[in-house]
Amino acid sequence: MGPLEGLKVLDLTRVLAGPYCTMILGDLGANIIKVEMPVTGDDSRHFGPYQNGESAYFMSLNRNKRSMTLNLKNEHGKTLLKELVKKVDIIIENFRPGTMEKLGLGYETLKTLNPELIYAASSGFGHSGPYSKKPAYDGVVQAMGGIMSITGAKGGEPMRVGPSIGDIAAGLFTAIGVLAALNHKNLTGIGQKVDVAMLDCQVAMLENAIARYVVTKDIPKPAGNRHTSIVPFEPFDTLDSKIVVAAGNDGIWKRFCGVADLNDIVDDDRFKTNPKRNENYDTLRPLVAKQMLKKTTDEWGKILDDAGVPNGPINSVDKVIENEQVLARDMIVEVDHPVAGPLKMPGIAIKLSETPGAIETCAPLLGEHNKELLKEFFDYSEAEVDKMIEEGIL
Amino acid sequence: MGPLEGLKVLDLTRVLAGPYCTMILGDLGANIIKVEMPVTGDDSRHFGPYQNGESAYFMSLNRNKRSMTLNLKNEHGKTLLKELVKKVDIIIENFRPGTMEKLGLGYETLKTLNPELIYAASSGFGHSGPYSKKPAYDGVVQAMGGIMSITGAKGGEPMRVGPSIGDIAAGLFTAIGVLAALNHKNLTGIGQKVDVAMLDCQVAMLENAIARYVVTKDIPKPAGNRHTSIVPFEPFDTLDSKIVVAAGNDGIWKRFCGVADLNDIVDDDRFKTNPKRNENYDTLRPLVAKQMLKKTTDEWGKILDDAGVPNGPINSVDKVIENEQVLARDMIVEVDHPVAGPLKMPGIAIKLSETPGAIETCAPLLGEHNKELLKEFFDYSEAEVDKMIEEGIL
Repeated sequence: MGPLEGLKVLDLTRVLAGPYCTMILGDLGANIIKVEMPVTGDDSRHFGPYQNGESAYFMSLNRNKRSMTLNLKNEHGKTLLKELVKKVDIIIENFRPGTMEKLGLGYETLKTLNPELIYAASSGFGHSGPYSKKPAYDGVVQAMGGIMSITGAKGGEPMRVGPSIGDIAAGLFTAIGVLAALNHKNLTGIGQKVDVAMLDCQVAMLENAIARYVVTKDIPKPAGNRHTSIVPFEPFDTLDSKIVVAAGNDGIWKRFCGVADLNDIVDDDRFKTNPKRNENYDTLRPLVAKQMLKKTTDEWGKILDDAGVPNGPINSVDKVIENEQVLARDMIVEVDHPVAGPLKMPGIAIKLSETPGAIETCAPLLGEHNKELLKEFFDYSEAEVDKMIEEGIL
Repeated sequence: MGPLEGLKVLDLTRVLAGPYCTMILGDLGANIIKVEMPVTGDDSRHFGPYQNGESAYFMSLNRNKRSMTLNLKNEHGKTLLKELVKKVDIIIENFRPGTMEKLGLGYETLKTLNPELIYAASSGFGHSGPYSKKPAYDGVVQAMGGIMSITGAKGGEPMRVGPSIGDIAAGLFTAIGVLAALNHKNLTGIGQKVDVAMLDCQVAMLENAIARYVVTKDIPKPAGNRHTSIVPFEPFDTLDSKIVVAAGNDGIWKRFCGVADLNDIVDDDRFKTNPKRNENYDTLRPLVAKQMLKKTTDEWGKILDDAGVPNGPINSVDKVIENEQVLARDMIVEVDHPVAGPLKMPGIAIKLSETPGAIETCAPLLGEHNKELLKEFFDYSEAEVDKMIEEGIL
C-alpha cells in the first residue's frame, strides 16, 4: 500500500517528463489511468531497443499504470474525457501549451466540471512568457538553461548531461507541485493548475553557479572532474579503472597518506593544509596519481574504506545494476511483462516505513484496460466498448 | 499564500540536499524552522563567495526559513528538540545514518513523542544496506551512480555534471516523499519515516541507460552532445558562439534547409529521411556546420524560430539570468538581505494558480529567530532565552 492510495490520476502525458512524474505517483500508490492515442499510443512505444517487440524505454517508464485509448479529436472522445475529469483527482499533460485549449479541454473548461481538480501541465517553456508556444526538446533546454555551460572538461566544450535531465527534473518538480496542491485540496477542497516548465527547472538546479556569478561576475565554465577548492578530490586512474578519492578535510588527507604510501609527503609544508594542497596542486597530483596506479579500484576501495577515506569507483551501468548497495536497497527490480518477458529497471527511490508503495504491474499494452476502465468508471459493457473501438473513439 | 501554509517543519539539515528540499517546501508556504549548531551554524555559512561577509551559497538556499540555534549534544538542548518535535508536522535531517540515534533522537524515539510525525532522512547511501554508514559526497555519488559514465565527450573521459546533481536530486525526491507521506497523514493521522539515499536517486535518474543496457548488453558510454539517433540534433558553431539545432522530424529538416540555404541537399537521397541522415552523418555535418558559421546565434535564433525549427543557444549563467523567458517566468528574483544587501537567486519553479507561494524573507542570520521561536513555541521570555544562550544550550 502506498501513501497515495485511492488517488485517481488521469495521465495524458507522453515520452518522458510527464510519464516520469506519473510513474513516481503510481509507485507511491496512485491509480494512474494512462490515456493514449488510438492505434499509435505514447510515442515512446516506438523507441528502441525492443525486447520481443516491446519498447524497453516505454516499459521502464510506465509500470503501475493502466492504459486506455481515447481519441481526443473525436467529439465522443472529448465527452468521455470530460466525464472522466469529473471522477478523478488529478489530470496531468505535457502537450505544447495551447494544445488542450485547442481541443476544448483547457484548464478553464475542465475546472468548471470539477472544481477540486488538480490540473498539472509540464512543458518546455511553461504556460506564460514570450517562448511559451515554442517547441522544446531536452537538448534545447539543457543548452538554454545553463547546465551545459558548466558541465564538461576544464577548458573544453560545454557538454550535455547524459540522462535527459531537462525532462526528468520537470517530472520531479511536477510531482512536487501536484502533491503540494493535493495538500491544499485535502484541507480546503480547492483544486488548481500546476504549471511547470523544463527551462525553469534547469534554472532552479544551477545550484551555486548563479550565486557565484552574481557576486564575483566570473562566468562559470566547465570545470572538469576536479573539486574547485578541495584537494585531492577527483578521479584517479588505478591498475584497472578509475577511483574518486575525496579527502574532504586534513584528517582524511592524513589517513589517506597513511594507506597510500605517501607518508613521506604528509607533513610536507606544501601539502599540510587544504589551502596549501590547492596552491601546490600541480606538484601534488602526479605524486598521488602514481600511487593510485599501483592497485586495482576494488583493492583501493577496501583500503580506503577501512581508513575512513571517502571514495568510490566510476561505475558504468553494468556495474551500477550489480552494486551490492544498489541491490540491498531494491533499486534494481525485475518486472515481468506478458509479451516482453522479464525486464530490469530502477526501483523506488523513496523508502517509506509505513506505506512503501510497490511495483505491482508491468507497463500496459496499448488500450489493455479499455474494458476494465470503462466498466469501472461508466459501467459500459464489453459490447459498447467494442463498438466505440470500431467507431474510432477508443 | 502557499499550498503548504500552516505546515511546521523542523529542519536540521546542512549544506545542500536537505536545505534544497526545505527551501522548496518553504517556497510553497511551509513554516521552516532551521535548527543550527550554536556559534558555527550550517557549514555552508562558511562557503564563499561572500557578499558583505555573508555567504551567497547559504543565502541562495535558505530564504523563507527562520533560524534558531540549538546544541543537540546538550541535555537541555535535546529536551527542547523533543518538545519541538511534539509541536511540528515534519522533521528533516541529512546527517550520516546513525547520528540521530547516537544523540538519542532517532526516529524510533521521536515517533513515540509524536505518532503523526513525518521524519525525513536524506543521506548518501540510505538508512539500510552495507554502505549505509559510509560518508558520501556529491562527487562520490555521481561516480558510483552511473551518471558520470554516460556524460562527457564521445570517446572521452566520464564527466561529472556541473551542478551537484547528487545532492539536488536527493532534495527533490525527499520533498516528494515528505509530501506523499503528508497525504497519508492528512487522511489517516499516521506519520512515518522517509528514507532517501543520494545513490538511489542517481539510479532512478539514469533514464533509458538501464533499459538500453539490459536489452542490448552494450555498456552505455559518454556520447557527447549529438543526439544518438536524430540528425541534425546537436550544437553548431555560429559566427559568434554556438546554437543547438534540433530537427526532430523530416518536416523540420525541410524547413531548416529552406532557411539555412541548404535547398541543394534537401532532396538529396543521402539526407532525405532521418535514417539516411543518420547513416550519412559524417557527410552531412560539415555541410550544415558551414552554413551555421555564416550568422550569429541571435540571427539564427530568429530565423529558425520563424521557420518553426526548434533551436536554442548554449547560455552561460550571465545569459541565463537575463533571458527574457526566464525573467518573464520570475525565475530570477532579487532578495534583499539586511547585511549582504540585494542578491539575485532562482525563483520558484512550481507555478500554482491559486496558492503560488512566495519568497517572503531572505536567509536568516544565525539564531536570528531564537527569541521569536522560543516565545512562539514555549512562551519563553527574552531573559530566559538569553540565559540559555549563556549556558550554551542555544
